[in-house]
Amino acid sequence: MAPALDAQEVSNGGETLTLSQPHHNWLNNNASHRSKVTVIGGGNWGSVAAKLIASNTLKLTSFHDEVRMWVFEETLPSGEKLTDVINRTNENVKYLRGIKLGKNVVADPDLENAVKDANMLVFVTPHQFMEGICKRLVGKIKRDTEAISLVKGMEVKMDGPRMISSLISKQLGINCSVLMGANIANEIAVGKFSEATVGYRENREVAEKWVQLFSTPYFVVTAVQDIEGVELCGTLKNVVAIAAGFVDGLEMGNNTKAAIMRLGLREMKAFSKLLFPSVKDSTFFESCGVADLITTCLGGRNRKVAEAFAKNGGKRSFDELEAEMLQGQKLQGVSTAGEVYEVLSHRGWLELFPLFSTVHEISTGRLPPSAIVE
Amino acid sequence: MAPALDAQEVSNGGETLTLSQPHHNWLNNNASHRSKVTVIGGGNWGSVAAKLIASNTLKLTSFHDEVRMWVFEETLPSGEKLTDVINRTNENVKYLRGIKLGKNVVADPDLENAVKDANMLVFVTPHQFMEGICKRLVGKIKRDTEAISLVKGMEVKMDGPRMISSLISKQLGINCSVLMGANIANEIAVGKFSEATVGYRENREVAEKWVQLFSTPYFVVTAVQDIEGVELCGTLKNVVAIAAGFVDGLEMGNNTKAAIMRLGLREMKAFSKLLFPSVKDSTFFESCGVADLITTCLGGRNRKVAEAFAKNGGKRSFDELEAEMLQGQKLQGVSTAGEVYEVLSHRGWLELFPLFSTVHEISTGRLPPSAIVE
Repeated sequence: MAPALDAQEVSNGGETLTLSQPHHNWLNNNASHRSKVTVIGGGNWGSVAAKLIASNTLKLTSFHDEVRMWVFEETLPSGEKLTDVINRTNENVKYLRGIKLGKNVVADPDLENAVKDANMLVFVTPHQFMEGICKRLVGKIKRDTEAISLVKGMEVKMDGPRMISSLISKQLGINCSVLMGANIANEIAVGKFSEATVGYRENREVAEKWVQLFSTPYFVVTAVQDIEGVELCGTLKNVVAIAAGFVDGLEMGNNTKAAIMRLGLREMKAFSKLLFPSVKDSTFFESCGVADLITTCLGGRNRKVAEAFAKNGGKRSFDELEAEMLQGQKLQGVSTAGEVYEVLSHRGWLELFPLFSTVHEISTGRLPPSAIVE
Repeated sequence: MAPALDAQEVSNGGETLTLSQPHHNWLNNNASHRSKVTVIGGGNWGSVAAKLIASNTLKLTSFHDEVRMWVFEETLPSGEKLTDVINRTNENVKYLRGIKLGKNVVADPDLENAVKDANMLVFVTPHQFMEGICKRLVGKIKRDTEAISLVKGMEVKMDGPRMISSLISKQLGINCSVLMGANIANEIAVGKFSEATVGYRENREVAEKWVQLFSTPYFVVTAVQDIEGVELCGTLKNVVAIAAGFVDGLEMGNNTKAAIMRLGLREMKAFSKLLFPSVKDSTFFESCGVADLITTCLGGRNRKVAEAFAKNGGKRSFDELEAEMLQGQKLQGVSTAGEVYEVLSHRGWLELFPLFSTVHEISTGRLPPSAIVE
């Protein structure tokens, strides 16, 4: 491909990227080296991610057109397999009904088969499933594969918390970036304007390739070199959203909700910087920070279920409400609150984080919902 | 008064204050030196401020019980004067119906009389009236009076923008702090939890006295030494709220709204730091920053009228909608957007602030409401 054409393609999606000349094969546009993308996860956000990516791989010569999407197989009430219906109708009828994914998206129920030709892996599943998925992928993926995680959450091990991007990197021996930001997937799916942030560790060129792959005129992606900051924003905001949902359920008004969101943002920043001193303040002003916090506290599923929990005075458990309200989608905030609480109590930091610890104590029934403002 | 009692009173309102020993008369608790507070402005927020203050002056020996509130006199439909009704019923029936202000609040239609014994002045009027009020007060107030401004907005003069606190300081020759933050006055009035930020220039003791005067268990006030940052937050957030209202009117969803709020916060920070390099990043994480922005963009009057403006496709002017929707309350965001635009165009900064400049161009009819996301 002529450099001029490359330059044109690089400016796809309304983003002006200053992509420098490729230094190694991974970034080479030569047809035999086109990158091949597999999305691991076929839920609501996974389907939207596949749709965004598939619209770009058709336009950009540096990627194979086909986007493979590994979908956890389910049998629908009709008796059909979910992947068969996705491949026949080009719609994920269970998790993103009414939206065409793009004909170049191929649903695949076989994890090993789905990744075998890929050199760009997009992880987007509930975080509870990540450890098992990584174990199944060991030894099955190409060398030089790049990964990106859209997964919110963390694992708490004996030696401390481990972010999902680290889990992927360590288990699979590959570099892993993250993409966080506005996560009301249904709004992105219908082309409403939103933003996201890519967090990367070292290689700016790799980050810019992910920016290219996700950016559209209505989905504006910015890369920052602060992987832990970006990932912790995406993870911890779900805990704040639970608190915001309690405030909504108690009908305490917008001032209170804004105050709780501010305290939550402050704890997000303090917690992130205690765990990783390299985390930058400026990251909290990116889309993954304040904007995603706002989106999630206004409309996300964590907020919604927490609102119902508070309305019921904590008498119905989160598990029960989740099963009833989310049609198989998973709630991240409650489990993340538990993980954060474990870190806080293990390190003696509980008193430094009254909002985070209270969310856990309310959601496990040890305190009433009204404790959120006490 | 015994020091022990002072110490107890200082911890009033759930705030732990580390008030050092008074150094001069103004801070002396001696009965003959008790501070006397006058609130200048009897609208919605002025009435709530008077109520908060009056609950504290009764409890704290360092203040006279009585709080005088200058009210711009109006004749009610019943033929009665507004101040007479306030003093008879202890309610501001026009701007804060149903809320008792406290029996120690005295409404006064005579500005000169209202301030004659005061040494603490709380300014809380629409900013359009501030220049006229200051002119009338020249030579009428005590030496060593301290002022605080709750007024949002700025004045644009030939030599650049002037903040309201500077206007007060310069015209009256007194020190002036600011209090900004959650401004949904009706929620504060009914005791819903919220926060605010006092911005001060130099004297920490004075700032702490203002914190004492405003703090209650449900209204938590924090002081920061960044008067311009705090005041510009309170002022500029109304411009962002206009943008958020446009997004609501166009029904663009929460992702878009959060993205616009984030871009707005970024422009607030950039604009403030260009005007006053001393402005601190951390101020934007205080209540006056991100929390007030959220409150105002969720529920404030600027948002509400801008939503109606966009729903009408810009065909009905802001003046018309304001008159119809706000029952005599004033909109700050549109005039502030005009003032900001004047600063930006005068200094050649228009292109650096696409959100601020687009809000002005939409609200003056030069661009359609949909331009807010273009």
